[in-house]
Amino acid sequence: MLENKNNAKTDLASLGEFGLIDYLTNSIQLKHQSTVKGVGDDAAVLNSKKHILLTTDLLVEGVHFDLTYVPLKHLGYKAVMVNLSDVYAMNGMATQITVSIAVSNRFPLEAIEALYSGIHLACKTYNVDLVGGDTTSSTTGLLISVTAIGEVKKDAIAYRNGAKPNDLLVVTGDLGAAYLGLQVLEREKQVFKANPNAQPELDKYTYLVERQLKPEARKDIVTLLEALDVKPTAMIDISDGLSSEILHICKQSDVGCNLYESKIPLSQEVISTSEEFNLNSTTVALNGGEDYELLFTIAQTDYSKIKGNPNLTVIGHITPKSEGVHLVTRANQKIELTAQGWNGLS
Amino acid sequence: MLENKNNAKTDLASLGEFGLIDYLTNSIQLKHQSTVKGVGDDAAVLNSKKHILLTTDLLVEGVHFDLTYVPLKHLGYKAVMVNLSDVYAMNGMATQITVSIAVSNRFPLEAIEALYSGIHLACKTYNVDLVGGDTTSSTTGLLISVTAIGEVKKDAIAYRNGAKPNDLLVVTGDLGAAYLGLQVLEREKQVFKANPNAQPELDKYTYLVERQLKPEARKDIVTLLEALDVKPTAMIDISDGLSSEILHICKQSDVGCNLYESKIPLSQEVISTSEEFNLNSTTVALNGGEDYELLFTIAQTDYSKIKGNPNLTVIGHITPKSEGVHLVTRANQKIELTAQGWNGLS
Repeated sequence: MLENKNNAKTDLASLGEFGLIDYLTNSIQLKHQSTVKGVGDDAAVLNSKKHILLTTDLLVEGVHFDLTYVPLKHLGYKAVMVNLSDVYAMNGMATQITVSIAVSNRFPLEAIEALYSGIHLACKTYNVDLVGGDTTSSTTGLLISVTAIGEVKKDAIAYRNGAKPNDLLVVTGDLGAAYLGLQVLEREKQVFKANPNAQPELDKYTYLVERQLKPEARKDIVTLLEALDVKPTAMIDISDGLSSEILHICKQSDVGCNLYESKIPLSQEVISTSEEFNLNSTTVALNGGEDYELLFTIAQTDYSKIKGNPNLTVIGHITPKSEGVHLVTRANQKIELTAQGWNGLS
Repeated sequence: MLENKNNAKTDLASLGEFGLIDYLTNSIQLKHQSTVKGVGDDAAVLNSKKHILLTTDLLVEGVHFDLTYVPLKHLGYKAVMVNLSDVYAMNGMATQITVSIAVSNRFPLEAIEALYSGIHLACKTYNVDLVGGDTTSSTTGLLISVTAIGEVKKDAIAYRNGAKPNDLLVVTGDLGAAYLGLQVLEREKQVFKANPNAQPELDKYTYLVERQLKPEARKDIVTLLEALDVKPTAMIDISDGLSSEILHICKQSDVGCNLYESKIPLSQEVISTSEEFNLNSTTVALNGGEDYELLFTIAQTDYSKIKGNPNLTVIGHITPKSEGVHLVTRANQKIELTAQGWNGLS
């Protein structure tokens, strides 16, 4: 898991900014008709008859990732996923990204290559054009700023503010695995610090670690919903944790919600590893974050269209605002939902 | 010039990420029809029938700016200008920006407010909507990542690659002032370090310091060129220095160029301060950078349309590639032009 340190190192300063940009961009192939001009001018040029989606996220070393156990290729892949996920959460398709990096001189060219190999893989897998960016030095560490562009038919956009009382609350995939993957990696880091010759024991945590290191944005769900002829009344991606995202939808839609603990989808690995770490698996799913699943609401009349789909789980329903936002526990107690998700500033 | 330290400080961590975002965005007013949805969802939503321009730049503390003498309001303003300048350099109009910041806990809320006051002022002055961004902590210092969106009629786009032999090379405004402004500020910083009670003497350098701290992107030139019915055959903005930008145009257009030293527009302050600093004013103009003027080429047949305009100076002409890229000195010597501009990675 810990990265293989390559011996041949190329000093970044010897390339210069333009040399590095040329090096990183000369293999880019553009796929989208909407990409009129990619890298190489003052700005990229795009063209679209649909609504255009625009989203951006910063990933900072020491805050969002720890290079002790995050391979740079995975980091590049994840930096793209985090942004594409926001486009899919609008019920749109991602078409272009720009990638800016600030990097200290302690990183050789080979490290930046590894980072970009993950970025290119993400672009290829998700059919996205890399059309621009900026490359600069930093006084410390690595910072990645990705901006994603997407398209969506005007009548298909899913905002956060359209949930109505009696709508069903639906989540994709399962929750909590990315957070537990992080706990496993942090534990291995401590073991490694104490004994650098120790072999990491990660086999039984493969699913959790993959969910943390190589999340996949749910492009497939946007396609699925269109095929099922379901338009979400509200949608958001789960980056900060289920609680936090439900509260966003409820606040912006001016509604309340009942979330049923027994319905929250958990993988077997999340249940067993929560026990091992002495954590409540519901708390992990509510507050863990970084799952990059989609959370959305649909009209009750659409229930028959999604019923039985293995990708989708109904976990609650929307209520009038006056009823508040609650978790209904397995013991049928109602507990007010509060956001305790990951906070980038704390 | 050195910033007035305010006494009342609000800890960023006490607000949290969402609190800070709410605080920074609740006063945003959107002006563009193309802005369907600004901040507050997973992505901003834009709409356009024209070509869309997309550009992004990173500004890193300790690399691009020094908070010892850069007021945060000016920094916010400049971070926007740097990006708008790239949109204007495509002959387009900027319509939206996103702003992401990574900030360490040593900055109180009031510092972030000052930064955003400059960002908001830039948006207001240049008629641009702030539609999104990201806010996170950093382990050290401040980093600003701005992405700008613009629009341009499909037949009006000016790429870097359209210059033809015999085209005229034209520059806006005057050059070298921003670089000398930086030299003046760096000198004052050393004086201040040696004697913190010394009053900075900046009066005679007002123009230079303003060009460094509060550059203005040349939106007016895009409007002017349209009014004059001139479409540049190639265009770029001057961020790295005149030499570097000429070489970009020549490389991408596959042409050569003769640049005439005697024609390069210099302000009186640049001439006198170059002498004072024992610098060659031509070298300052060629390699200084950060002027954010526009450099473009036009067909000779358009010369009569721009002749005598005080904003525009013809400084050379395009040649076949085989003739190379040269500076023709006042003594009528031809010197090969090389890029020695600012390099973000050195």
